[in-house]
Amino acid sequence: MPLINTVDAGSILLQATQGEAFAQIQNDALLSSSLWVNIALAGVSILLFVYMGRNVTSDRARFIWAATLLIPLVSISSYLGLLSGLTVGFIEMPAGHALAGEEVMSQWGRYLTWALSTPMILLALGLLADVDRSSLFTVITADIGMCVTGLAAALITSSYLFRWLFYAVSCAFFVVVLYALLTEWPTAAADAGTGEIFGTLRVLTVVLWLGYPIIWAVGVEGLALVQSVGVTSWGYSALDILAKYVFAFLLLRWVAANERTVATTQREPSTGSAPADD
Amino acid sequence: MPLINTVDAGSILLQATQGEAFAQIQNDALLSSSLWVNIALAGVSILLFVYMGRNVTSDRARFIWAATLLIPLVSISSYLGLLSGLTVGFIEMPAGHALAGEEVMSQWGRYLTWALSTPMILLALGLLADVDRSSLFTVITADIGMCVTGLAAALITSSYLFRWLFYAVSCAFFVVVLYALLTEWPTAAADAGTGEIFGTLRVLTVVLWLGYPIIWAVGVEGLALVQSVGVTSWGYSALDILAKYVFAFLLLRWVAANERTVATTQREPSTGSAPADD
Amino acid sequence: MPLINTVDAGSILLQATQGEAFAQIQNDALLSSSLWVNIALAGVSILLFVYMGRNVTSDRARFIWAATLLIPLVSISSYLGLLSGLTVGFIEMPAGHALAGEEVMSQWGRYLTWALSTPMILLALGLLADVDRSSLFTVITADIGMCVTGLAAALITSSYLFRWLFYAVSCAFFVVVLYALLTEWPTAAADAGTGEIFGTLRVLTVVLWLGYPIIWAVGVEGLALVQSVGVTSWGYSALDILAKYVFAFLLLRWVAANERTVATTQREPSTGSAPADD
Repeated sequence: MPLINTVDAGSILLQATQGEAFAQIQNDALLSSSLWVNIALAGVSILLFVYMGRNVTSDRARFIWAATLLIPLVSISSYLGLLSGLTVGFIEMPAGHALAGEEVMSQWGRYLTWALSTPMILLALGLLADVDRSSLFTVITADIGMCVTGLAAALITSSYLFRWLFYAVSCAFFVVVLYALLTEWPTAAADAGTGEIFGTLRVLTVVLWLGYPIIWAVGVEGLALVQSVGVTSWGYSALDILAKYVFAFLLLRWVAANERTVATTQREPSTGSAPADD
Repeated sequence: MPLINTVDAGSILLQATQGEAFAQIQNDALLSSSLWVNIALAGVSILLFVYMGRNVTSDRARFIWAATLLIPLVSISSYLGLLSGLTVGFIEMPAGHALAGEEVMSQWGRYLTWALSTPMILLALGLLADVDRSSLFTVITADIGMCVTGLAAALITSSYLFRWLFYAVSCAFFVVVLYALLTEWPTAAADAGTGEIFGTLRVLTVVLWLGYPIIWAVGVEGLALVQSVGVTSWGYSALDILAKYVFAFLLLRWVAANERTVATTQREPSTGSAPADD
Repeated sequence: MPLINTVDAGSILLQATQGEAFAQIQNDALLSSSLWVNIALAGVSILLFVYMGRNVTSDRARFIWAATLLIPLVSISSYLGLLSGLTVGFIEMPAGHALAGEEVMSQWGRYLTWALSTPMILLALGLLADVDRSSLFTVITADIGMCVTGLAAALITSSYLFRWLFYAVSCAFFVVVLYALLTEWPTAAADAGTGEIFGTLRVLTVVLWLGYPIIWAVGVEGLALVQSVGVTSWGYSALDILAKYVFAFLLLRWVAANERTVATTQREPSTGSAPADD
């Protein structure tokens, strides 16, 4: 009898958090609009990208197109998780934080889904630059490490110091990603004849991705210079719109218009004309 | 003193759910048989597959064999998780659901482990068809997206609408997988000389995989036309038996009998005789 | 009003576990030293490895170097998670266990982060031996399966039998990894001209990795022959030091000194001299 009561209490507690977050988001116009706008734009992007890819026929171009199409699909999943309250929680900030002892709404689901969506962006960039598969794997792993340690930083309630230690480790993983984007991949892209569009998308990605740790640092989860959950959420949402849908649109438009360039840049055949062991 | 009490209460609550689920499954013969039968068949499959692979010597055939062997290994882990109560929970259905307000046992671990086992099936199919690595990566990512959003759909308790929104997104990911299986990969398989067995396994996979969203829709988690957790669980278990062990058996039997065909279908050497940039 | 109270209670419960674990670790010198020593060594390793890689220029050597650099980066994240209490919990052991009914501190985060760090080790070994990408994928998947089922074994509180069933499945995945390391990969390494260093690292990896299941079996989570959480933690930490930092140092020192060998061992060009379809 006491066991059953305990179980009921446990499941009620956990599910109340989800229902409570759902209700709180619904009642905050600024916060809920920051989420709905991304669901709407991700939906439009999916339809638009399917339409843009209708005439792409070559294998390699179709792969880039498919990888790019996954970006808004993962994004719409992420924002549905936030809006439903499933991937949102209430965090009591530790001593030392500007909001110490207060309950702050944490959109921890963002970090989790970035671990799935940002690898797609890197995959699309890597395919465009025709980089080695090992390089792609290493960069994507560092990228996932960046997202997972960002998630840890957001969830720490025991110590203010450890929130920033995780932030520092997340930035170290980011440096590995930046290193590849800034030094190795441009060379590969130039060899593949995709240097120009890669250059554009690389600048877009590097500049926008630098925005995420800055928002974390000044937002409610970091120094709390901005204490509004809605404004912080809009910051992330605006970056997502540019780094995901605009990025993907530019990439797909170029692929559709330059299918021949993409099709002839296949890694395997090129080894015949440029062996590495001579 | 109050802190310690609170901690004890917290861990007791969380662990009581696991123990309670374990006891409830043990006492439901229909439900527990749907899980034990898969553990038994997965165990038999592992032994059988190790035996079937004893004479496979070529590199490529051994890789297909190893990927296929992982399917029952992941499956046995999944069903042990369900039986132990570790990956089972009690969900209070939201307003609008046929069982609104009632506690329903959710086997959420199924969705989590499908995210690991279904990629193995796609990997085996992709290796058989000798598809491009990028295509494989994209399809597997879409497949993982399908499983993770299915997990989200199962866990939503705040809103009936959001359960079905996640269901829709999961189906959208499924469409990406179906697209590859139905249009791109058959061409690659024909080129690789594995068209016939690929065709058989593709039909098996497409037909059976369509069964999972149908069971979700009519079962306790969706429209609840079937309200028995045991019957719903048997539905999934029966599909798993066909889509995993029978699939893997057919594949391995063919690989063992046609090792020469598999061995000579290697991607890299073929680029010499059929360059893509001519 | 009761809803709000329930939510507060829920989040307080969950966060109290983290704070409690943080405090308990801080007050146990043996336990906290086993974690801090790894953070210190991982930090030193990161700086040392960046320095060692300064003159590595060839593509392939740089990829091995980057994959190796990720090992201490993932490790430092893992130990920060343990020290902060985020990935530590209190488990009430089931009937049959030597500590049945007692609350035991479980460092479950170790299993979770091994799922990210051990694939990096296998990736570095696989790149060194120049194995086929499919083989690498299969072995890494088995390795992740090993870590995830180890996590499940650690979290089971409903049944002593199921703890050991998961342990057995985890060992089965380990056998797949061992099979590749002992029979397939050495052949590939010999062909790639990296047989000697691969042999050294393989022995190091196989011997040390066998230590983890042994510690689990005799430590607090298994037979509890050793009942000290601190001693068990030091066991894992000592293995991590040898299997991660020493392993990575030996690998990088060899790569830096033998860059020419590594650079000329590229999979694609070699297909010209040794076609598989003749």
